[in-house]
Order: sequence, then structure tokens, then C-alpha cells
Amino acid sequence: MPLTYFAAADDGPWRVVRHDTIAGAPLSAIHRLRVLDSVNSAGSTPGDWPLRGVTSHGRYVTRGERRLLEARQPPLGRPEATCAALIPLAKSTVWWDLAQDERRAIFEDRSAHIATGLRYLPAVARKLYHCRDLGEPFDFLTWFEYAPADATAFEELVSHLRRTAEWTYVEREIDIRLERV
Amino acid sequence: MPLTYFAAADDGPWRVVRHDTIAGAPLSAIHRLRVLDSVNSAGSTPGDWPLRGVTSHGRYVTRGERRLLEARQPPLGRPEATCAALIPLAKSTVWWDLAQDERRAIFEDRSAHIATGLRYLPAVARKLYHCRDLGEPFDFLTWFEYAPADATAFEELVSHLRRTAEWTYVEREIDIRLERV
Repeated sequence: MPLTYFAAADDGPWRVVRHDTIAGAPLSAIHRLRVLDSVNSAGSTPGDWPLRGVTSHGRYVTRGERRLLEARQPPLGRPEATCAALIPLAKSTVWWDLAQDERRAIFEDRSAHIATGLRYLPAVARKLYHCRDLGEPFDFLTWFEYAPADATAFEELVSHLRRTAEWTYVEREIDIRLERV
Repeated sequence: MPLTYFAAADDGPWRVVRHDTIAGAPLSAIHRLRVLDSVNSAGSTPGDWPLRGVTSHGRYVTRGERRLLEARQPPLGRPEATCAALIPLAKSTVWWDLAQDERRAIFEDRSAHIATGLRYLPAVARKLYHCRDLGEPFDFLTWFEYAPADATAFEELVSHLRRTAEWTYVEREIDIRLERV
């Protein structure tokens, strides 16, 4: 699987406008960000950057759900989507020790993660990167893009998810908001 | 996740007694193997070795199935289990493009992967390593240990799995048999 890097870069096309530690250890502040397919070490300061992940395959989504998602989800890079969010998170050992059916039940039956995301389509474009198997400090990096007019809807989506049963397993979460330079 | 390496090593505790290419491109032959938590580059010839993977979490097993597995599965390293098999395999893009429910249906409802494995417990100890997200040439490395008296049963298990619907998605498979030195 090809890696994607979220790197600090003085000339990066995304300017950080907010950086909040929601849970767990903080992450070093950066000013500008670039999303890359490869990095040279010079581009990767401060020490806990770049973050990296792989798109991999869906772990919970069923065929029916994927059909709904694909029918509604917009691509990244829409000209009007000048707002972005990068939300790295890690779940607890308890979560990862659950069996597949138990994780799926919490994820969707109890927390409606997919159904909730669907309500914010096509406003919010989203791409998920996996990094747990890579030995990274986070399990997932999620990248979102939306227009300024949809910023309130995006806040609603994020705060809704943080109140779900699934989120009780989130041990570390950083919320970085960006705007296109 | 900590990495495990399967490395060529002249003084390795496992001697290769058979090395078959079941599907796809072959893998360089080695004579002795050692399972390690880390490698220095000197220990990793020929070029396509070492293989590496992470134990990660179960992708399909339900709580009920895991209870059955845990009640019956033996640990690695039993003194009488002097036979081992290392089976690296990669599945097709078609497999990885399936949704979770479709993969699970092929894996267990149609192919009875877990149910079949259960029939060979506690004779055959098994440990699965994931490596697709690591960008490795294989998706999985499975390591098995069994006593010489159970060698026929192990052949039966392997040949049974190779006739399942799941195996029609296997694009590359190498079967390496070893004995403890």
C-alpha cells in the first residue's frame, strides 16, 4: 500500500488555523501543512511530524453502505472546499482486543458512525488513512475538506461523533483545522 | 504494533525441508530460518528476505468463534512440535475491493476457514501476521507448528483450504516447510 505523509512545510498549501488536543498527549504545533506521497527527512520537522498512513481497505462498511457512500461522497480538491481538518486518533487496547462483530456493533449499531457521516454528504469530503499496523503513534488519520459555508455542519458532525459509544474507546485525539492558502 | 521478521540465518533454529511455489512469483530459497523481533541488515539476505509482519487484530473472527479458538489452540514452542510451515500469501485486488460483509461471507459462510482450522486444534498451532498495510509483497504470513505425527493432518488442512472459494482470490502463495534443528 502506498504511504501518504502529512508533513510540516513552510510553503505548504494548508495553513493551520486551530490545533486542539481533544484527548491524550498533544502533538507539536505546525504552521503550514502539505500532503505528500513521499518525504525527504528535511521536510519532516518538528520531531513528531510527518504523520503517515495508508488508505488500505474498509474494515466495517458493508456493500449496501458503500453503495450509499459512493453515490454521495464528493472528491477531495473541490475549489470551494477551502477548509480542511486533520484528525489523528488512537483507540484503546480494549477496543483492539474486541472481536470483529463487537467492534462493528459499537461502530454502527450503537454509534451510527456511517449513518451519521452520510447525513453530511456531499458537503464534507473525507479520506481515512490507517496507521496502526505501521507502528505509528495514531491508529487513524482522517482528512476532511469542506466549504466555509459548511463549517457549522462540520462542527455538528464532529461533536456528534464524540458523544457516541465508539468514542469512549478513543484514547488520543488531535483536531487540526486548516485553510487553503 | 511490533514487527516480527522471518529472516534467513545460517545458524537459524529452523531448517527448510521443502519450498514450493503454489501460486504467483517464487521467493528466493533459504536454508535456515530464524524468527526475530528486529534484524540488522547483515542478517537479511537474499534480497527478498526477511519477510515481516505484525500480529495486529482479528479481521473476521467473532466473539463466539474466538472463544472456541482460545479454548483449543495450543501455544507456539511446544517441545514435540518440531515441524513448522511458513505460508506467505497475497490476495487479489478484487478481494481487497470487496466490502467487509462480502469478505466475511466468502471467508467463513462459503469457505469455513475458521471452522476448518478448529478441526485441527489442538494439533496445529498457528500464528497470523499481517503485512499488506506495510507495503510488503505479501498480505499475510502464517506460521504453523505441529508434531511429526500430525503432519498428515496438516497436509489435509492446507489442501482443504486451497479448494475453498476464498482461495480463488489468492494470487501468490509460497509454502515453506521446516524442521527444528
